[in-house]
Order: sequence, then C-alpha cells, then structure tokens
Amino acid sequence: MSQLTAEKLEQAVQLVRKSGADAWITFVRETAGGGDPVMPLILDGGLTWQSALIVTADGARVAVVGNYDADPLVSSGDWTEVVPYVQTIREPLIATLEKYLPQGSPRLALNYSLDDVKADGLTYGMFLLFKQYLEGTKFEGALVGAEEITIPLRARKTAVEIQVMRAAIAETDRLFEEIGQFTKVGKTEAEIYRYVQGLIEERGFGYAWDRAGDPIVNSGPDSMLGHGIASDKISLAPGHIFHVDLGIIKDSYSSDLQRCWYVQGEELGVPEDVQAAFRAVTAAIDAAAGAIKPGALGWEVDAAARASLVGHGYEEYLHAAGHQVGRLAHDGGAVLGPRWERYGRTPFIPIAENEVYTLELGVILAGRGYLGLEDMLVVRPHGIEWLSERQGQIWTIS
Amino acid sequence: MSQLTAEKLEQAVQLVRKSGADAWITFVRETAGGGDPVMPLILDGGLTWQSALIVTADGARVAVVGNYDADPLVSSGDWTEVVPYVQTIREPLIATLEKYLPQGSPRLALNYSLDDVKADGLTYGMFLLFKQYLEGTKFEGALVGAEEITIPLRARKTAVEIQVMRAAIAETDRLFEEIGQFTKVGKTEAEIYRYVQGLIEERGFGYAWDRAGDPIVNSGPDSMLGHGIASDKISLAPGHIFHVDLGIIKDSYSSDLQRCWYVQGEELGVPEDVQAAFRAVTAAIDAAAGAIKPGALGWEVDAAARASLVGHGYEEYLHAAGHQVGRLAHDGGAVLGPRWERYGRTPFIPIAENEVYTLELGVILAGRGYLGLEDMLVVRPHGIEWLSERQGQIWTIS
Repeated sequence: MSQLTAEKLEQAVQLVRKSGADAWITFVRETAGGGDPVMPLILDGGLTWQSALIVTADGARVAVVGNYDADPLVSSGDWTEVVPYVQTIREPLIATLEKYLPQGSPRLALNYSLDDVKADGLTYGMFLLFKQYLEGTKFEGALVGAEEITIPLRARKTAVEIQVMRAAIAETDRLFEEIGQFTKVGKTEAEIYRYVQGLIEERGFGYAWDRAGDPIVNSGPDSMLGHGIASDKISLAPGHIFHVDLGIIKDSYSSDLQRCWYVQGEELGVPEDVQAAFRAVTAAIDAAAGAIKPGALGWEVDAAARASLVGHGYEEYLHAAGHQVGRLAHDGGAVLGPRWERYGRTPFIPIAENEVYTLELGVILAGRGYLGLEDMLVVRPHGIEWLSERQGQIWTIS
Repeated sequence: MSQLTAEKLEQAVQLVRKSGADAWITFVRETAGGGDPVMPLILDGGLTWQSALIVTADGARVAVVGNYDADPLVSSGDWTEVVPYVQTIREPLIATLEKYLPQGSPRLALNYSLDDVKADGLTYGMFLLFKQYLEGTKFEGALVGAEEITIPLRARKTAVEIQVMRAAIAETDRLFEEIGQFTKVGKTEAEIYRYVQGLIEERGFGYAWDRAGDPIVNSGPDSMLGHGIASDKISLAPGHIFHVDLGIIKDSYSSDLQRCWYVQGEELGVPEDVQAAFRAVTAAIDAAAGAIKPGALGWEVDAAARASLVGHGYEEYLHAAGHQVGRLAHDGGAVLGPRWERYGRTPFIPIAENEVYTLELGVILAGRGYLGLEDMLVVRPHGIEWLSERQGQIWTIS
C-alpha cells in the first residue's frame, strides 16, 4: 500500500507548512514491539536502529536510518532522500538538518502531546537522546510538539484510506449476512460469537477492538449490555431483539458497525413497539448525521441525536453518539459526545472534511432486549456521505 | 494469569529496594493501542484514563486509576491499595505519594532509558504531565530512570513464566513434527510457509516476530537466507537441506527455534558432509551453552561458539550467537553477540540466573543450502537448563 504512505506524506507537507514549523521529525528505534503510533501512516514496515523521518515545510521528505533499514525506504519511492548510516545517527542527522534547513533557527516539531495519546509517540528517553544530539547546534532551542500535524494527519483520510475502509465495511456487511443465515432460535450468544470469530480468523482479518469483546452479541432482556461477554447460557428466543456490534481490521483499517434482528415467534410480522424503536433509533442517527459538516462541534452533533431520541419518547443513551474510526475503531481526535467531563475537550474539536466517523446509539425495550444501530460516514464539504449501507428495517430470524 | 503478575510484582519490590529508589512509578494512559512495554508484566488488561502504578521499596503496590478501570485491579488481588478517581489524577496521585513516602525527598523511578527501548515506555508528553502534577511538591526534584528495575524485571523469569514458555516451546515442537509429515519432495517453500501459518492461526497462537517472515523457510542453495520470504518458485529437491526458523506466542510468551532436514535422494543415508556440518553446528551451540552462567558476558559466550565452529573448519556466522526470549522473540537486555559496534553495550551486560536465551547458528553447505539449529535454555545458578528438546541428528524427508 505504498500509494497510501505517498498520499499521507503529501498531506504531511501541507500540514507542516500550515503549522508554522520548519520540519516535522519522527524519531524512533526498534519499532517492532510498538513504536510511534504515527509511523504506520508514513512508512510500511519497521525500523531497527535509531531513525529520523523528516518532512520539511519545503516538501523534502528525508529518512536518516540504519543501513540495514535503508533498502525498503529507497524502493518505496516515498522519500526524496534516504541517508543510511552505520555507526551513529548523530552526524548524519545534524548534517541532514543543516542541508535542508540552512536559514536562521528552524522550529522542529516532535511527536509529543499532553492531550492526545496518538500524537504522543516520542518516548522520554528518545527525547533526551535527540536533545543530546542537537547540543551545541543551532537546532537545540526550537523543539515544539507536533499535534497540529499529527492529529489532522491521522484524522483526515485520503482517497486511498477511504477506499480501504470501504473494503473493511463491505467485509463486515458480508459477516452480518452470514450471521443472519447462521442464527436460529435456540442458538446461544456464545455460539454466534465463536462462529463470527472463526470467520474473522479464517479470512485473516484483525479485531477492531479487544478480541474478547468483538463481536458484542446481545440477545434478549437478560444479556450483558455494553462491553459484556457473549453468554453460553443465553439463547435466542421468540419475541427478543438480537443485536451485534462488530468491527474488523482489513489492510490495517477498521470498521465498526451494529445491526439488529427481531426473533420471530408465532405472531404475524414484527410487533409495533419494535418497529417504533427501530424508527426512533434510525431518526436519531439521521439527526446526528444532519448536524455533521466541516466546522461543526461534536457536542452539537450529539445534542441533535439526543434530542431526537428523547423527542420520540425514549431514554437518553449514556455514551457519545459517535467517534472517529481509522486504524483503530476508536481512533482518537474529535468525539461526537456530550459536554461531560469524562470526554474532556474532545467534543469541542471542530469536525473537518474527509474525517471518518461512526454514529451509534440504541434503546432498551422492556422484555425484548437492546435495539441498536451503528453506521459509518465520511465528512464532505457540505455534509456527509455514508460509507456503510444503512439497515432499512429490522431483520427477522426464526 | 494473575499468578504471573503477582510474582512479577513481588520481584519488582525487591528490585526497587536494590535500585536505591523509594518508589517505581509506571505512568500511562489509553494503553489499548500500545502502552508501556513494562505494563503487561504487572497488570492483565489495559488502562484508559491517566494511571499511576506505584511500587515502593517498602513493598506497597498502589494503583491510582480512573474509576471505570478500578474493578479488575481490585479483584486481581495484586494491589495493596487501589485508588480510583473521577475528575483528575493530580490530587489522588500526590496524596498517595505523600501517604506512602512521608519522609524526606524520595527518589521516584520512571520508565525511561536512553539505551533500552523496552525500558523506555514513558512518552515525553506523559513525562511533562507528571512533572506538572508534581510542581510545588517535595517530589518534583527527584525523578530518575527505572532501568535498574525494568530491565531485570523483564529478563529474570519467574517459575510461572518459565512454565508458560515451556508450553510455547512444546507447541512449536509439535509444529515441527507436523512440518516433517507434511513436507515432501516437490513442495514449494511458500506451500510449507502457508501450511504452518494456517496451523498457527487455527490454534490461536501469535507470531513471535513479524508475520511476513514467520516461519522462515529455506530450501536448497538458491533460497533467500536470513529474513527472506518463502518462495513459490523454490521446491524441495533431493540432496538439499530444508531448514525452518519458527517462533510462536502462546499465552503472551514466545518461542524461537530452528530445525533442519536432509532431502533424501537415491543415496543410502545422509551424506557425510551434511552429517559433519550438523555435528559442527551442534558442537558450537554446546560450546556457547557451556560458557553461560550467572555473571558471564554475552561476548564471551559468542566467542566460545565462534571459535568452536571455526575450529571445525566452517565460516563464522555474521550475527550474534543468541539473544533473550520472553514476551517477544527478541526481548531486549543482554545479547550473546560479538563486540561489534552495532550491538552497542548489550554484549557486556552480565548474564543472570533465570534469564531465558536462545542459541542459534548455522553453516551454508555448497550446493545444499543452509543448515541451522536453534535451541532455548534458562540460566541456572551454575550453568544452564535446556528448555527445548535438542535435535539429536538431522531428520530426513523424501
């Protein structure tokens, strides 16, 4: 997926320029066991020795890396220069900075942030090393955090990223279809959970959140809601709602969707209380979607959904109406949530074009269980475009 | 595996005491996407809000965590006190430090290190936050790196850790047996690679290193050695060596082993040049193992293996004779390698009791391919105990 990193590096140049920094530097080592969360956006694969990935406001993209790591970077074509070293990164790093930033005292942006964990990949030991290397040079005085670069770089998806996410969503839709075919009255939540995990692993997908709770499977009024574990003791029974919250990772990007079914009994069709709840949940998600546009704030979007649901006579949900999706299901940045203290400043971050969000909410129906829906969208200049195909009506199982 | 974290915390208390620090603090947030590499040693599961895991030289183990994260820590029984908070960690953190460290100006050890990436889990943003919180208290002046605690904590295995690693090794042995049964003349490297990955995924194991290169499958003289990719074009042919380097993760701990086969042709038995190479590789690994004991240095161990192999008339290998294994196949700390600059100070870290190493080396046989072996061991008071069952002679395939 070299097109992906190429596009993100192009985007990074624009963001560096806009941030006022002269260069953005991702400084890492031995990234196999984790590494800086920003790195996969701009580089496929890992780096072993101390490495500096430098993007300048002038558009240079320079990688100073150990000589064993150089070949894949050269062949990616993403870097305008690759500087391999053997003994120590110090001299080649300083020489590279001097070559590309000859004027004045340049501002160097590094990956640290007090607020956003995804923008805080530089470890303290690496910061100290970096400062040591710059000692006595003109660069030592001007280190700043790179939040203004790394947060939008992750959030604002390129065309290729959106295409990859569409593919993850399509595979999730296919899993929902298979769940509908597999599921029958009498099957337990845990049987369905294991069936889905079998398919996910057979197809080589990852889990968009902790494997233990993916998928979330809820059936009937006794099910553990939220992040509960699928039960071996609860099986599908007529008159109940059956609900699945499922996210996969395909080609490094996540989906996060919810679908629901009515477990049909002897009655004709789906009872009116279930249909009314489905309509109310759909309307609340529509209300949220209608409030999303570049510049809108997350709490405004959440308030629209919350008011709609309450207006239909249902209780408020106890979470945010939506969140960003990207490499992970919960991908940081703006949250489409209420102005509750636990969400900190995240409901106040303005929404921007090309960000991908999911909208999710539901209601509890007495005696029947949880009816919830979740759909994904991308922000466009004047509103949204749905990435997932909405569920038009509640499906049935018998 | 709560017994595991309980044992590691017990060990941590001893290491804090020995280090001269008054308390060791792991300060993290939103650990789902990565987090501090030290955390899984002392805690099962993740933490969401800013959290401080505190171990004092007096034996207190106190966790200051967000209220939603508190329950699993309380029920683990690992923590002498769990302090939940709702609004901000600042006041409960300071109050906890004051309660447990009432005297003088205590030294607080934090997870940063210029040399060891596994001991450098504190991000710079989190360091700045921590300093901010301590401002104006008696704790602000005495922050030190926790290398002396975190490096041995990871390296020195408890009885439970060794037991878990034995199970990972046993599953790897089983995979080698299945490889021997599956493999026939004419199968390609890539077929065997895919077969092994299928078994690994079916059984729910992880990969001990990058999935793309696990297992490494080499067959014959034209195979890509080292970290090369299994080929669809190279198939097993009589007279060649077939070699597999394989590591899995089971219950969070890794294996890393190599086995080899001779591809039998019309001739009777295994040719003498192959048998001689197998004996020489075995002898070199024996020489390394014989040099391992608490206090020995990695370069001395490597030198013993290197001298043995050269003494048998073979060329030197171009890597280290061994490395630590733990949660990952390459688990940091001491390296059993030569005093080459690229290994830095790692061949000079003294070997200690209960550390787990793997020993690996091989030779290239002209016209036949790579004959390599790798076996795992634990350091005991006066020498070593093998954890893997050695391969007594080269196996055959036809």
